[in-house]
Amino acid sequence: MHKIPIGVLGASGYAGRELCGLVSGHPRLELAFATANAQSGTTAELRGGQRVTFVSTEDAPLGDAALVFSSLPHGASKEWVNRSVAAGARVVDLSNDLRIGSDSASGIPYGLTEARRDQIRDATVVANPGCYPTAVLLGLLPLLERGLLAPGATVSISAASGVTGAGLAPRLDLLFGEVTENFRAYGAGNTHRHTNEMRAMVAEFGADVDLLFTPHLLPVARGILATMSVPLTGALSDAMEPWRSRYANEPFVELSDALPELRQVAYRNVARIHVLPAEHVRTPTLLVFSAIDNLVKGAAGQALQNANLMLGLDERAGLPL
Amino acid sequence: MHKIPIGVLGASGYAGRELCGLVSGHPRLELAFATANAQSGTTAELRGGQRVTFVSTEDAPLGDAALVFSSLPHGASKEWVNRSVAAGARVVDLSNDLRIGSDSASGIPYGLTEARRDQIRDATVVANPGCYPTAVLLGLLPLLERGLLAPGATVSISAASGVTGAGLAPRLDLLFGEVTENFRAYGAGNTHRHTNEMRAMVAEFGADVDLLFTPHLLPVARGILATMSVPLTGALSDAMEPWRSRYANEPFVELSDALPELRQVAYRNVARIHVLPAEHVRTPTLLVFSAIDNLVKGAAGQALQNANLMLGLDERAGLPL
Amino acid sequence: MHKIPIGVLGASGYAGRELCGLVSGHPRLELAFATANAQSGTTAELRGGQRVTFVSTEDAPLGDAALVFSSLPHGASKEWVNRSVAAGARVVDLSNDLRIGSDSASGIPYGLTEARRDQIRDATVVANPGCYPTAVLLGLLPLLERGLLAPGATVSISAASGVTGAGLAPRLDLLFGEVTENFRAYGAGNTHRHTNEMRAMVAEFGADVDLLFTPHLLPVARGILATMSVPLTGALSDAMEPWRSRYANEPFVELSDALPELRQVAYRNVARIHVLPAEHVRTPTLLVFSAIDNLVKGAAGQALQNANLMLGLDERAGLPL
Amino acid sequence: MHKIPIGVLGASGYAGRELCGLVSGHPRLELAFATANAQSGTTAELRGGQRVTFVSTEDAPLGDAALVFSSLPHGASKEWVNRSVAAGARVVDLSNDLRIGSDSASGIPYGLTEARRDQIRDATVVANPGCYPTAVLLGLLPLLERGLLAPGATVSISAASGVTGAGLAPRLDLLFGEVTENFRAYGAGNTHRHTNEMRAMVAEFGADVDLLFTPHLLPVARGILATMSVPLTGALSDAMEPWRSRYANEPFVELSDALPELRQVAYRNVARIHVLPAEHVRTPTLLVFSAIDNLVKGAAGQALQNANLMLGLDERAGLPL
Repeated sequence: MHKIPIGVLGASGYAGRELCGLVSGHPRLELAFATANAQSGTTAELRGGQRVTFVSTEDAPLGDAALVFSSLPHGASKEWVNRSVAAGARVVDLSNDLRIGSDSASGIPYGLTEARRDQIRDATVVANPGCYPTAVLLGLLPLLERGLLAPGATVSISAASGVTGAGLAPRLDLLFGEVTENFRAYGAGNTHRHTNEMRAMVAEFGADVDLLFTPHLLPVARGILATMSVPLTGALSDAMEPWRSRYANEPFVELSDALPELRQVAYRNVARIHVLPAEHVRTPTLLVFSAIDNLVKGAAGQALQNANLMLGLDERAGLPL
Repeated sequence: MHKIPIGVLGASGYAGRELCGLVSGHPRLELAFATANAQSGTTAELRGGQRVTFVSTEDAPLGDAALVFSSLPHGASKEWVNRSVAAGARVVDLSNDLRIGSDSASGIPYGLTEARRDQIRDATVVANPGCYPTAVLLGLLPLLERGLLAPGATVSISAASGVTGAGLAPRLDLLFGEVTENFRAYGAGNTHRHTNEMRAMVAEFGADVDLLFTPHLLPVARGILATMSVPLTGALSDAMEPWRSRYANEPFVELSDALPELRQVAYRNVARIHVLPAEHVRTPTLLVFSAIDNLVKGAAGQALQNANLMLGLDERAGLPL
Repeated sequence: MHKIPIGVLGASGYAGRELCGLVSGHPRLELAFATANAQSGTTAELRGGQRVTFVSTEDAPLGDAALVFSSLPHGASKEWVNRSVAAGARVVDLSNDLRIGSDSASGIPYGLTEARRDQIRDATVVANPGCYPTAVLLGLLPLLERGLLAPGATVSISAASGVTGAGLAPRLDLLFGEVTENFRAYGAGNTHRHTNEMRAMVAEFGADVDLLFTPHLLPVARGILATMSVPLTGALSDAMEPWRSRYANEPFVELSDALPELRQVAYRNVARIHVLPAEHVRTPTLLVFSAIDNLVKGAAGQALQNANLMLGLDERAGLPL
Repeated sequence: MHKIPIGVLGASGYAGRELCGLVSGHPRLELAFATANAQSGTTAELRGGQRVTFVSTEDAPLGDAALVFSSLPHGASKEWVNRSVAAGARVVDLSNDLRIGSDSASGIPYGLTEARRDQIRDATVVANPGCYPTAVLLGLLPLLERGLLAPGATVSISAASGVTGAGLAPRLDLLFGEVTENFRAYGAGNTHRHTNEMRAMVAEFGADVDLLFTPHLLPVARGILATMSVPLTGALSDAMEPWRSRYANEPFVELSDALPELRQVAYRNVARIHVLPAEHVRTPTLLVFSAIDNLVKGAAGQALQNANLMLGLDERAGLPL
């Protein structure tokens, strides 16, 4: 059967490599080109042993692709999204240039697949969510849709990510010698750029709450766990019921009987969620735990999930469950 | 100069070994005995190369020690604290048997050194705090003492600990193969036993707040980082001022210019604290970060700090800064 | 299409779980039963999210399986291999009970697939190789088959394995706190039980050499790298030529341009090999590097490769390349 | 008491920071200056909490120091050694510019303390050994001095180092995400620059052997373990006797009853050695295991040991045992 040609811009980073691997193993897609300016002309080996030869972004035959994934750096991506569209391709943009909450977001669907399927299906461009927002918003979605968050309250979100979330960049603070046996917060006090993205999405649901988001850097390669304390309008008799109802038919959200662990989601395109009520607090409060692989469900996997929808394929095609 | 004889009960676990090492390197103390039932008669090598030969707890010459540290398991420790006292020794108990919030705590000083020096100095028995409570309470102490916590509010505490916090126990879930590249919460929803200890101490200061404590297991050997979002009665013009004032003369609390990291406190008897205000939230809220080495300031180091006070020595003697 | 029923004995350990996952995801096989005495009646979740319910080994319906994998402990496995055969099943035994070099090996093919395909295809029972011997022997095979090893010489083998090689056992020395930031040899001086297995296989090829094997424990979950210095009968003009010729058509041996790394083989059923000549030594000597995932090509993956052969299926079916 | 002023050139790297920490904690030394060109004017916090303000190397008051440690990069160090000497300072050079086996080594003592004390004491400049050569040569020294190595034989050395051995450099291959759960050899086939240094030293003892050295990169921050198979002129009745005799009075070499582990030497200025005979080999062969902390005994600690000798202080002063 004829395979659909796909381009990957910015293919040498962690998310880009993951995209190339997913496309290469996909039953209905094939890699038309993969760009990496600094490594233009060189060949890289993907995790599964496949090989890909990079071209410079400037030389990419954008028009040859039915769909382009852009993993270009934040700020640089927007231009290439436009160029790709002009060349006739549809685009899933993994940068934060066009995401909800940013100035350029107008009219561009936010690719949180489980929440925006109808908009994604027909979109020319989809803004793939950030990794933290994916974990957080899938955790909160059932409460947001039902209006169960206590008005005026603060949702306290402590999240921890593996180092690949920071990209494949030669930074001293990401060296093994600096990260091993270490743990630290960063972007604290609601200063991380993903805060805005989450706040904008929460506002779309009309929830009158404040988010207080604190990310941390874990000594692991991949994975995000978000731990959220969520004040409710009232106690729930069955804490996990909203999640069971909402996600009953979602192939990429799994509810666990116990607290989720990073290794349960590694290399898989799932969010794994557990919810329980807090004891010894006056305000009815839920603890929501949401774990994803930041490079799969938090980046390349969700991007492919969106691309499958856009291309009329089975949403699950080529995705590691 | 004559050295003061010290006993260590339960010396083969992580905290017990740390205690033996600290006592062995102390300028004024010497190890009179170290007990470990299962390894009775065997000799172990401490981190610094010193050697210690274990006796069974039943055979320990309790009366030979001026002071006994008990690192016996929770539940088993209380009896040996009493036996040690009957034999004429003073005791620092590292178990949770006699800590504030437990039934047997009456009259026994809680060994959070920076908060209870006067009671500790003259005590026969001191209940050394748990590792999480040490990090959390040193972080909150300036606010507790000044009554700055917003009444009725929830203090959300997300903390993460290295695996030595769970002790040297042959548990499958603590194997390297299960912990590496992993991260998970446990004891969530205020069900961890340290919650009670923290709540009792907060109540002693008359603070009308709820604590919501969620511990996590980190893939590191040692260290605890507590990340706390703390609603205040009102905004502070200088967020760190209460900590600077309160800890100006404390040798074992260090305030950092930036977010604290676990490796900055590893093998040291310090709590390292940073505070900053949260943006984009209606309720004035501080983020308080407190990092300790769970085996040093969170266990053996603080125990020695207390012992130094009880024995009339320089509080800093023998402690790694 | 009808699927072939497969049993797994000893399914709760690392290799057993890996086998259950591979069988569950195999296009032509299905799991008939999985045994785990201590966890009989409980359900476990495999890495990919599938679930398996354990029965006790005594209760396993051995006759329902066309083929049984035994991951039972060394010593205990042999009896159940016999019982399975008596019940009409064929067996791939992952223990060392029946391997070449042991007393009970007589007539039972050694399941180093690339070297023994013809014997494996028709066998009732196959003895799956140990993890270290798989890495070492695939590295040496081209030299063994061509008789290129210098007579009387010592082949020095330094190998390092991740902790899953020691099994899922509650041992203190395998705790995260003991393994992280650590590295050590064990079984040194040719005392490791795998030495015998390798020596027996080398002897089968008539090579008159001594092996000197030193295993090490790595702070990683999975993977083995064997580093071998191999004195030759004479220098080779093209060091990798014997490997290229020998493995040209082997789907599960990959030759690399550079020194192989553990993460290149993780979760994959391949041995990755690189060879280069030593400089500054009088005896012509090759350095042979061979990397595998100890749980896949070194255990469950190779076992399935053998089972595929025995069942007349495509040798590659269900195996992660 | 008056303290002796010490300078550190290249103080911002791993070895330089370790030197600053050791000097700051030394009872008889004080830090006169510490240079770091890129961070000139900034203040860094050392592991123990002390602070140091860097100046540019060009601005360093070389003449103010009685002794200068140079941790400048290989190639750049030599010039500053000369400038320091011209300014009246003595120097311990941690680069490989002046080490035995290099062109510029003539007459400069090789600072393997245990082997060259007399030359070091009176030297103006000492060339501190590389980390791998320290571990290897201390392991082989008793055999070298007694002439026990089999003539014409190859000593096979497989060594593994933590990532700090590569320095504090922003290299992609040293990122946590690339090193965790990974292991690989590098510089194989006797191409690592330390090979030459070891070969030259072995030649000084008149040993007619070839070394075959293969280093590996470990997923740990610090530590080197060298595993050596050493053919002898004849079997020894007591394998460890040469080491016990030779090192009986050495404070910084410790012989262990069991195979040494990296964590036993972390943060300590010791080499820990164990020796055992190989079984099942025709050539009498010893396995020698030698473990050090690459930043302490393999760099800064040994450098201070040498400085203590040069300055007429107790060799052990300020060194963590």
